[in-house]
Amino acid sequence: MKTKVLDILKQNKTYVSGQELADRLGVSRTAVWKAVAALKKQGYNIVSAGNRGYMLDPLDDVLNAREIKTELPFVFEEKMTSTNDVAKKLALDKCAEFTFVTCNQQTAGKGRLGRTWISPENQNIYLSMVFYPDTDIEQVSQITLVVGLALAKTLMETTGAQVGIKWPNDVLINNKKVVGILTEMQAEIDRILFVVTGIGVNVNQTEFAPEIRDKATSLRLECDKVFKRSEIISLMTKNIKKYYEIFAKGGFKAVRDEYKALCLNLGKTVKATCRGREAEGLAVDISANGELVIQTKDGLVNISSGEASVRTSDNKYI
Amino acid sequence: MKTKVLDILKQNKTYVSGQELADRLGVSRTAVWKAVAALKKQGYNIVSAGNRGYMLDPLDDVLNAREIKTELPFVFEEKMTSTNDVAKKLALDKCAEFTFVTCNQQTAGKGRLGRTWISPENQNIYLSMVFYPDTDIEQVSQITLVVGLALAKTLMETTGAQVGIKWPNDVLINNKKVVGILTEMQAEIDRILFVVTGIGVNVNQTEFAPEIRDKATSLRLECDKVFKRSEIISLMTKNIKKYYEIFAKGGFKAVRDEYKALCLNLGKTVKATCRGREAEGLAVDISANGELVIQTKDGLVNISSGEASVRTSDNKYI
Repeated sequence: MKTKVLDILKQNKTYVSGQELADRLGVSRTAVWKAVAALKKQGYNIVSAGNRGYMLDPLDDVLNAREIKTELPFVFEEKMTSTNDVAKKLALDKCAEFTFVTCNQQTAGKGRLGRTWISPENQNIYLSMVFYPDTDIEQVSQITLVVGLALAKTLMETTGAQVGIKWPNDVLINNKKVVGILTEMQAEIDRILFVVTGIGVNVNQTEFAPEIRDKATSLRLECDKVFKRSEIISLMTKNIKKYYEIFAKGGFKAVRDEYKALCLNLGKTVKATCRGREAEGLAVDISANGELVIQTKDGLVNISSGEASVRTSDNKYI
Repeated sequence: MKTKVLDILKQNKTYVSGQELADRLGVSRTAVWKAVAALKKQGYNIVSAGNRGYMLDPLDDVLNAREIKTELPFVFEEKMTSTNDVAKKLALDKCAEFTFVTCNQQTAGKGRLGRTWISPENQNIYLSMVFYPDTDIEQVSQITLVVGLALAKTLMETTGAQVGIKWPNDVLINNKKVVGILTEMQAEIDRILFVVTGIGVNVNQTEFAPEIRDKATSLRLECDKVFKRSEIISLMTKNIKKYYEIFAKGGFKAVRDEYKALCLNLGKTVKATCRGREAEGLAVDISANGELVIQTKDGLVNISSGEASVRTSDNKYI
């Protein structure tokens, strides 16, 4: 019953009277009223206006297991410590490849290098996916690039905005970060047991702490529109699987051109830090292994992991 | 009391009468008898012969927390699923570096590539140590070489036998394997969270399954002597820490010469397999990064991980 009421409200972008709902479903108006009350309790923002009936708020962005349309196995919970933690446990129990986990709120969201990933409830996407790559450990960093590419493609398609990738895997709109990626693995010397890639997407968040306000943003702030997280999740998980499979078959070189086309670093002055060593110069290429190639005054330097800030036209480093 | 009785029995390699023990410790003969009974219950093989008194069996090899002499933090339990599993949990809780765990029996001992490590009780050493290397993920395989070197040195010192290393980290006596090493890690792309190295040493085991009898052996079988596991553990953990610290400071090149001096592959024909690719030829060097360098008919090939069988003088591959 609830599902049927919800379906009708979703199809109609305007008010539907209680009587019409009752007639179409062959139930009493009281039954309709009860279904609506139950849906509201689940987080759906259903507006009721006297004799006009019920309407699902078009800005509604409920994320739950029912709203996620996917053929991939997944786990949804309202709250998780961090999606990577949950995914790592599933991977230890040998869940299927491409299994993903997602939630409305992380209580201990993690960023790279031990940092915190700010994870307010009901606004953003927190999602981790499990991979079992049959590659060398050295190639795991390429998975992060591939996931970044899949995210950039997803957000371009979803928002229509100009989306870029700052090597290795920051996804930016208007030079501000909307996606963070944290890849973790468990491995022996010559065997990867699993890789878990965690993704945070700032979707509908509007408030950012002052210290990150000029670096971080959300889709809503950049596009002035509320997005449905469930739709983005459905598309992004599909895209991640698609690009990962291209990579698994053909290596990073199979997605290199698409990655380069979106890479913001190329042709710009960059400062890269890799394990304490610094390299500064013109970013000239992304190698077939996914390394950032920098023309420094001492010659070409290939950076395989780390960070690389980019000098913008107004001479700031982002 | 128990400790004092044990100390006296350890010092005297022959029988000590109950009266002498009672006199030296200033207690009754009944108290001595109770202490001996308690020690027997803990696994010490104390022989009592009528009026001659008590003697600790010189072949006794009790392994417990008291027998392990070390300055390093450690956990001992009679039985563990696998020492790597226990050590990984300690590492997740950020135990001190060089913490080791050991036990008398593994119920789910693991070898490389998902194999089983046969782990009968009270005969062999099962030990795992925790490291937090500040290196690239690519260098983790070198830790395994360093641990193999420390083990070979320990067993040479302990047994006096000719001990060799089959690259990367099999420790052999008379061309048969006595040590297996399994290194596992948890990592992000540019940050190692921890490395756990598990070590199995066949010490006093005398029976091997037919299918591994010509490949595996124990110290006891090769040296015709019962060894005290606690003494080997005390020395090997000290040696692992020593060589690891040399490596952490100076890289693999700082221990390369010592490794090469014990490496059985060099100067021999080898067949190496690395992720499906095969290389065959004369093993000519171990590189500064710990790779096995093979002179094949198509030129020099560097193998960074995998296995490498060695052709012996009687034309078998070990």
